Amino acid sequence: MDKHPDERLPEFAAANGLIHRRELLVGGLLASVAPAIAAQEGLSPPPWTLAPGRPMSGYGMPSEWRKTVQRGFTLPPGRPGTGASRTPLHLLEGTITPNGLHFERHHNGVPDIDPARHQLLIHGLVDRPLTFTLDDLLRYPLQSHIRFIECAGNSGGAAAPNPTQADAGTLHGLVSCAQWTGVPLAVLLQEAGVRSTARWVIAEGADSALLSRSIPLAKCLDDAMIALYQNGEAVRPEQGFPMRLLLPGFQGNTNIKWLRRLRVTDAPAHTKDETSKYSELMPDGRARQFMLEMGPKSVILKPSFGMNMQGRGFYEISGIAWSGAGRVRGVEISADGGRTWAQALLEGPVLPKALTRFRLAWRWDGSPVRLLSRATDEAGSMQPPRSEWVKQYAPGQGYHYNAMQAWDIDTAGKVTNAYT
Amino acid sequence: MDKHPDERLPEFAAANGLIHRRELLVGGLLASVAPAIAAQEGLSPPPWTLAPGRPMSGYGMPSEWRKTVQRGFTLPPGRPGTGASRTPLHLLEGTITPNGLHFERHHNGVPDIDPARHQLLIHGLVDRPLTFTLDDLLRYPLQSHIRFIECAGNSGGAAAPNPTQADAGTLHGLVSCAQWTGVPLAVLLQEAGVRSTARWVIAEGADSALLSRSIPLAKCLDDAMIALYQNGEAVRPEQGFPMRLLLPGFQGNTNIKWLRRLRVTDAPAHTKDETSKYSELMPDGRARQFMLEMGPKSVILKPSFGMNMQGRGFYEISGIAWSGAGRVRGVEISADGGRTWAQALLEGPVLPKALTRFRLAWRWDGSPVRLLSRATDEAGSMQPPRSEWVKQYAPGQGYHYNAMQAWDIDTAGKVTNAYT
Repeated sequence: MDKHPDERLPEFAAANGLIHRRELLVGGLLASVAPAIAAQEGLSPPPWTLAPGRPMSGYGMPSEWRKTVQRGFTLPPGRPGTGASRTPLHLLEGTITPNGLHFERHHNGVPDIDPARHQLLIHGLVDRPLTFTLDDLLRYPLQSHIRFIECAGNSGGAAAPNPTQADAGTLHGLVSCAQWTGVPLAVLLQEAGVRSTARWVIAEGADSALLSRSIPLAKCLDDAMIALYQNGEAVRPEQGFPMRLLLPGFQGNTNIKWLRRLRVTDAPAHTKDETSKYSELMPDGRARQFMLEMGPKSVILKPSFGMNMQGRGFYEISGIAWSGAGRVRGVEISADGGRTWAQALLEGPVLPKALTRFRLAWRWDGSPVRLLSRATDEAGSMQPPRSEWVKQYAPGQGYHYNAMQAWDIDTAGKVTNAYT
Repeated sequence: MDKHPDERLPEFAAANGLIHRRELLVGGLLASVAPAIAAQEGLSPPPWTLAPGRPMSGYGMPSEWRKTVQRGFTLPPGRPGTGASRTPLHLLEGTITPNGLHFERHHNGVPDIDPARHQLLIHGLVDRPLTFTLDDLLRYPLQSHIRFIECAGNSGGAAAPNPTQADAGTLHGLVSCAQWTGVPLAVLLQEAGVRSTARWVIAEGADSALLSRSIPLAKCLDDAMIALYQNGEAVRPEQGFPMRLLLPGFQGNTNIKWLRRLRVTDAPAHTKDETSKYSELMPDGRARQFMLEMGPKSVILKPSFGMNMQGRGFYEISGIAWSGAGRVRGVEISADGGRTWAQALLEGPVLPKALTRFRLAWRWDGSPVRLLSRATDEAGSMQPPRSEWVKQYAPGQGYHYNAMQAWDIDTAGKVTNAYT
């Protein structure tokens, strides 16, 4: 087998070493990859083979060696009230976010709700106002779906004039993905009997912010769910225990946590949570409301800021892509600042409104490069360059940021955040 | 809308109230379901709306109200050494097992391995013996797959003469499912250069049991993986941190945790872990070795032991099915002890060698019933009744138990474990 990487060149798909995804990366090509050293036969026994290990546990935790893999804060943790913690995307793999690391966004802290005392009221323009306890809801047919949730403010810092030098979790970590299980909202609304004049549903949480959003009725009758489980276990307190509204593909804050009330109406309520924030300031000074669907987006996580290159040779570029409109149709990667593009491999199953992992082999020759990714969704929408994205809004407006993320790599292998 | 369930009868698919999966369960049919009461407009504010909630956290945990959702032990926890803890399947939903509740099976406790000092050696019948650190492996192209792991001894208590009255987690909880990310083993073996006489690979763990199993080379070149991540984060210590062998569909104990060595050989090693146990005693007194693939299996979790019926009316029957041979092709449910069967809905995406959630609507009329499920996989294999399964083995042999689970329901709605 050929051991020198340069003796057999792979099929390149775009400039600066992006390798066609058909290429099987074995043997000579990979020999440059891992500094796998010829091994002596046998290994001396490491200390952990010499004494019994620790006992079993009722509920496991990550290794102590990985205790720095935590949600990130822009403000110090430990303060009640409003704020966010971010999923450390750059330290994770695959597409499922473990429950302990699902991002948080709270407007007045995490309530501690006794599930036996919690009720969901459906009222307003319905024939029969109804209340449901958790036990009531558990009698209904359930559905499970893997879906992402992304805060409308995710990546919004990129609206600032200069790129922040921070890791991908800090920049883009207000998105997470889980398998959610619950009751389709359409079933409950049909039981209540929605009246013909109804057009909106006002959803209210049981936190002390009483966070409230106006949701188009059509969404509630489509794929909305009262989510009771998250990756198999009860929805976490930070994600709305004992129940949250799940609106797949809609901005995070409409997925009302600790859901206590759905009021069916003929018009939106213009609550504080959709006027003072979560509306977009436009170039003419007016605010756009109710642009609820999150656009197509992708982020390269390997390599990304803080993860510098270990010399020239083979690397796997990988990252995540998603769209509120449905499935990701394709992710393209450029290693020359956007002049040439190669299609990345999308790891299946590619699910609608779920994170999709993309991967592409790359041979870095040590020269400076600008890496970019751009996702296209099944509706045909593609991520814009940042220069185009910012033109849509007033300066500094950061909601719904979905422009391409660029990483610059210099000859020393240092990775920095760049604007396109 | 029709409020009385009996005024419009659904399409039944099998005896005793199993409803055809085409039926849309809304309105009149569901009105009997949830004791949804006509609600007063407005709700008095619950206490958690009146004061700020708790702050954000770096790594979240389940609600205190769900702290009894734990892995179950047959022996008391807190003892080092050998044993198992089980996933509380009956308390979970969907198909992903949260990492804190993935079942454990240890042969001498959980080692605490410094990932910087851990190495994987590939040697034996190879051209180039190689060692890999975790960092080396992270340079390779990775793959993510949702796959189950099931202990060969799962459900083995059902080989006893009388049915144990215990919940589904206790009876069948040595199976879990996660999204695993890692390096395809075939790539590493190709780098090492497997010799033409090679037929087996002996895999050894770095725990103090040095758990070792012989794996057919063909499996290692097929879908085997060195798994580094579990549901997005580093593999948990109980599941093999920093790396485990993942052999999709093969019995749990071959998925060697804390993997330190793969020795390529021409014959199996007949280690203590595949002779003293994990072999099946046959009726003629001989032991069968290396029956590694787990058969097709299903368990109804709702309802199941400990979850008694709340009066006649609509229920959703749901549970999980899986097969080591690939995808689950179908799950049938009987509510009359196996005389008539209805096809359950399989919740997609149905993935190979992954848990699949099945669901079926059911109207219980209050009479005694025996509920059964039987899975068929894409290879065409179907779960046998217990009476047929036990004939294959010596009395009491419990490995690879995959017979149908039956639950009896009496007129009071009490659910008990039954044999078929």
